[in-house]
Amino acid sequence: MNDTFLKACRGEDVPYTPVWIMRQAGRYLKEYQAVRSKHDFWTMCKTPELAAEVTLQPVDILGVDAAILFSDILTVLEPMGQKVEFIEGKGPVVDNPARDRAGVERLRVAEPESELGYVMEAIKLLRRELEGKVPLIGFSGAPFTLATYMIEGGSSKNFLNTKMMMYREPELFGSLMEKITDTVIAYLGAQIKAGAQAVQIFDSWAGALSPQDFRTYELPHIKKTVGALKGDVPVIYFANGAAGLLDELNETGADVLGIDWRVDMGRAARVLGKDHALQGNLDPLSLFLPVEKLRESVKDILDKAKPAKGHIFNLGHGIVPQTPAEAARDLVEAVHELSRRA
Amino acid sequence: MNDTFLKACRGEDVPYTPVWIMRQAGRYLKEYQAVRSKHDFWTMCKTPELAAEVTLQPVDILGVDAAILFSDILTVLEPMGQKVEFIEGKGPVVDNPARDRAGVERLRVAEPESELGYVMEAIKLLRRELEGKVPLIGFSGAPFTLATYMIEGGSSKNFLNTKMMMYREPELFGSLMEKITDTVIAYLGAQIKAGAQAVQIFDSWAGALSPQDFRTYELPHIKKTVGALKGDVPVIYFANGAAGLLDELNETGADVLGIDWRVDMGRAARVLGKDHALQGNLDPLSLFLPVEKLRESVKDILDKAKPAKGHIFNLGHGIVPQTPAEAARDLVEAVHELSRRA
Repeated sequence: MNDTFLKACRGEDVPYTPVWIMRQAGRYLKEYQAVRSKHDFWTMCKTPELAAEVTLQPVDILGVDAAILFSDILTVLEPMGQKVEFIEGKGPVVDNPARDRAGVERLRVAEPESELGYVMEAIKLLRRELEGKVPLIGFSGAPFTLATYMIEGGSSKNFLNTKMMMYREPELFGSLMEKITDTVIAYLGAQIKAGAQAVQIFDSWAGALSPQDFRTYELPHIKKTVGALKGDVPVIYFANGAAGLLDELNETGADVLGIDWRVDMGRAARVLGKDHALQGNLDPLSLFLPVEKLRESVKDILDKAKPAKGHIFNLGHGIVPQTPAEAARDLVEAVHELSRRA
Repeated sequence: MNDTFLKACRGEDVPYTPVWIMRQAGRYLKEYQAVRSKHDFWTMCKTPELAAEVTLQPVDILGVDAAILFSDILTVLEPMGQKVEFIEGKGPVVDNPARDRAGVERLRVAEPESELGYVMEAIKLLRRELEGKVPLIGFSGAPFTLATYMIEGGSSKNFLNTKMMMYREPELFGSLMEKITDTVIAYLGAQIKAGAQAVQIFDSWAGALSPQDFRTYELPHIKKTVGALKGDVPVIYFANGAAGLLDELNETGADVLGIDWRVDMGRAARVLGKDHALQGNLDPLSLFLPVEKLRESVKDILDKAKPAKGHIFNLGHGIVPQTPAEAARDLVEAVHELSRRA
């Protein structure tokens, strides 16, 4: 079994730096498009065989060192009480955004083991199909990020409604965050029970918060989530846009911290690397570089990450659909080659 | 004359911390909406009397310590060779995006003094109407930010086309950046000649670049711009999303650095404050806080900025249209009151 990913998460010695790619099961692969052309996005998420099929594609095609379940961070909204539609070119649209007390009270803590059974089935199926080839990562959205979708009703530019509730009705906002946090803990716990060998908490919109607000409104929920899960499998916390939040990241308790491309990996290693393995952090658009330049960028990140307790190579954000699949292969090859210990 | 703003820019003693608000001439003011309801956005920019009228509104209504010319960073595109339309709810749309050699070659360095005469007229008119009440700030977009609009043809999520040119045709990208930089230098120089008493360079999308890419592709152009202008009036450089770029900001040569809300002002003061006055950095959405909480946030930033050479209070980004005008007044009052030297 290729366990370089799990070893790197724990800060153990590895023969080379493991690599996987955020959104590695995605539209940049023609094999993914072939499946997607026959099924809509939600059907793919909710059908264990389809989710498993596209989850496995990048393992075979790219040779990455971990698989990550094909799913979406918004799966938990339905059992919590909100319908979600994905509209082509517009992104997710959430029914009945929760913007007042009645809206928050209508929502409830999900019971993922029964209500998101399709996710657990996909994980079990994948563990069998992977046959220990590479570890399987489960994931969830982070409480603040999920709250933004539940309050705004979709993507947002400046999170006006979310921050209005946060600032004007902090208790109401807090009660929503508690429901979400309890759901996330149960959801990731169920994924681990089903067989996930690591879990990643995606905080896509953490970067919308000032350091003080992150500390007040999100950090306690991250600590609670990590604390409840910690022990059996590595917990990865990825906060996007968190260049101004490094001191706060040091307090989450996560085993691994994901770092986006807008943070110098050398600074991340200095500030966070003593107690954490780091994951990242190549600009996803770097995959459009000529291969020799791409390799220089990979080398630079590998070197800068060396002082950290461990390093899992990844992009600093999801791979974009227009990326040539060949470049993703070049990336995996470059990471393996340039990091191999003599 | 109220010269607290100019003194703070130069790091001189001031009786209280001066404050102005990015987008202070904007839709959150009913007085602005009254003018805007009769004229489209471009007409307001291009008619000196209208631009001057809305520029003056916040000076009278809020009591801010500086006026900033009402205009748009995209004014330079037309004389450079690209038409710009503002489409309600969609943002700017640029004709003929420059995505290849022919597209870049079609563009030329603007002659702002003659080709953007309406801007210079507005400045001259404003200097007369302000009668020295508060200083007048001129501005321009930064080269990278302007390049993204010229290449993408509008706003962008991940700057795919910009980075594709940057990474695959660095020389072509460089020649575009040179044309823009020469335009920006001429534009700000003409504004200063017309009477602008400080100039701000808005780098709205600098935060899309990794620290290494910022250093390679944007910093040299910022240094060149600042170097060409420096001396007569303070030069403010505001890079949005720059929490990961503080070391680089230290090298721009600007007199004042604008700091967005996602950077702790204490860290900014430590890293940048020795040689720079700092401007910022309250989350624009904080204007939805109850007034007592708003005042606490103001006090916190005032305290954290103290070690810096100078401080001009501002939001960390533009005020949002939904903001109650009353909150903007509360902010100005709080800054003045809480910062007054005994």
